[in-house]
Amino acid sequence: MAVAHLTIDLAAVRANWRTLAAQSTAETGAVVKADAYGLGAAQIATTLAKEGARKFFVALAEEGATLRTALGPGPEIFVFSGHMPGDAPIISAADLTPLLNSVDQMLVHVESLPHHGFGIQLDSGMNRLGMEPAEWSALRSLALAQAPAMIMSHLACADEPEHPMNRQQLECFLKMTEGVTAPRSLSATGGILMGSDYHFDITRPGVGLYGGLPFSDALPVVQIDLPIIQVRDLLEGETVGYGNSWRSRRPSRIATVNAGYADGILRAAGGQMHLLVGTIPCPAVGRISMDMIGVDITDLEDTPDSLQILGPTQDVDSLANAAGTIGYEVLTSLGSRYNRRYIGA
Amino acid sequence: MAVAHLTIDLAAVRANWRTLAAQSTAETGAVVKADAYGLGAAQIATTLAKEGARKFFVALAEEGATLRTALGPGPEIFVFSGHMPGDAPIISAADLTPLLNSVDQMLVHVESLPHHGFGIQLDSGMNRLGMEPAEWSALRSLALAQAPAMIMSHLACADEPEHPMNRQQLECFLKMTEGVTAPRSLSATGGILMGSDYHFDITRPGVGLYGGLPFSDALPVVQIDLPIIQVRDLLEGETVGYGNSWRSRRPSRIATVNAGYADGILRAAGGQMHLLVGTIPCPAVGRISMDMIGVDITDLEDTPDSLQILGPTQDVDSLANAAGTIGYEVLTSLGSRYNRRYIGA
Repeated sequence: MAVAHLTIDLAAVRANWRTLAAQSTAETGAVVKADAYGLGAAQIATTLAKEGARKFFVALAEEGATLRTALGPGPEIFVFSGHMPGDAPIISAADLTPLLNSVDQMLVHVESLPHHGFGIQLDSGMNRLGMEPAEWSALRSLALAQAPAMIMSHLACADEPEHPMNRQQLECFLKMTEGVTAPRSLSATGGILMGSDYHFDITRPGVGLYGGLPFSDALPVVQIDLPIIQVRDLLEGETVGYGNSWRSRRPSRIATVNAGYADGILRAAGGQMHLLVGTIPCPAVGRISMDMIGVDITDLEDTPDSLQILGPTQDVDSLANAAGTIGYEVLTSLGSRYNRRYIGA
Repeated sequence: MAVAHLTIDLAAVRANWRTLAAQSTAETGAVVKADAYGLGAAQIATTLAKEGARKFFVALAEEGATLRTALGPGPEIFVFSGHMPGDAPIISAADLTPLLNSVDQMLVHVESLPHHGFGIQLDSGMNRLGMEPAEWSALRSLALAQAPAMIMSHLACADEPEHPMNRQQLECFLKMTEGVTAPRSLSATGGILMGSDYHFDITRPGVGLYGGLPFSDALPVVQIDLPIIQVRDLLEGETVGYGNSWRSRRPSRIATVNAGYADGILRAAGGQMHLLVGTIPCPAVGRISMDMIGVDITDLEDTPDSLQILGPTQDVDSLANAAGTIGYEVLTSLGSRYNRRYIGA
């Protein structure tokens, strides 16, 4: 039983959704793309559907089909990548709502599924996905006549509330949707926190549900405990791990825990990361291996059975800091080798 | 059909195994831990078993159990993490050979499975896993009397053939195994390439099978093609993606492809990575999103349907360089969202 344990707290997801919903003047959906940021779209979405969420968002039609199986009929499932050539059978069978992002997609959609609902994705400045103002002007009357389920855009800088890009995108979105009666949506977690100007009719929280910034009041959702395989005592001057990159400066006690970058513990965090016993931090030493990490437990009185790498003391954003990235990537990187346990259902 | 395509060339895996086996004076096994570095342990191991490999290596007993189902009875499956408390039923049912790495594990093993085979893992200086010289001295006679299936150690610096650590570990291993008649194993891919002094009785190639360094003659195994969701034309001075981190210096044509860090395209590669059309590189622009990447295709004459991120022109190590990591992590990070196709079976 050397398998690492990943515990996902559905009660915390539920509480985070409720808190974000309470801050929002709009209907609150839930973004469960990328298998709910790696945490299990089926479990997360069914939990939030019971809590009252009726609109879910995925990246791909294929994700939507899997999610429909889990959710059953009823809740709306929106697809951010829209309607790609070949998607029609999936969109139809799973009753998905593609968020069309170009004239090309609009044509594909109305030709292949003329009576099937859709939403519209506008580009308000991120230049990633969605119709540009000129494209939208040309298509607008035609699209609105078919009563789109949603008209949405996405903010590029919502993690930085003071960034001028936010207001610029808001103004662009307002201008592009002036006079529109279809439901409008602009905000994910960051936008919700920026206040009601950004909320419109539907909000789409994602990372905040899973305990990540910019929702600093989020309850932590993920806990990972790594079993110790072996403990050894080192003399001063001995090296640990690949490339001899760490050398002991004192007689040291080193634990080897059973997880590594194949489990999504990003290799970039090597040498800058801590593991925990309760709230006591123990530094990771040497390079992170594919399946193992060395940890300096010299200062512990007793040797525990496992060390915690994610939990109440070190959240996804703290671990992300050590790896020079963002909490989102820590979440989506968690691999398939963990023993996953859902609590709080 | 916005799903990205991951093609795994089993003929290349087979060829890489044969080339490494031909360079080795020992029996050649295969390391298929972490689901064969993310590429599918069942497919890789059954392919190599047909090619003649009889010894496979995994990290965890649980991985070994899954592999046994794929391989059927016959080939030996060794477990690097050894025999952890609670592992006995799995080890017994799946007929696994734990590589015991401490006196504690030896005790657990002989108490719970007294007549079940095992190997011994020695620490020759990496200080990660395996018995220390003193521990081994105390246990050696007892262990050897039970005819271990293998006595092994692991090199910390085999990616750097000139590193003095290699010879130091070789000498330590020779000393620790002097007079031993059980089969000995010291080398993974890097050790095989360092020559016959390092080969002993069994070699354990891993990353080289999958097309990664230090096996510079490896055939590439993985190809990833990312469908383009949308193309847009930008004026000079427009920004792309999260945080407005990229700004066009000329009128530009930007493609958005449908994969991101949730698919294991490490976020650290943002701004330093290229995608390809044939051999023509197109720079990724802006931050890598969870499900999308922006790519500057201004210099292409025609807009392709997809862009390649891994393949003959950009291998796992080139992509790893862009992300400041190693090819191993690029491989193990590839997520579950790809449409996976095996060729060359």
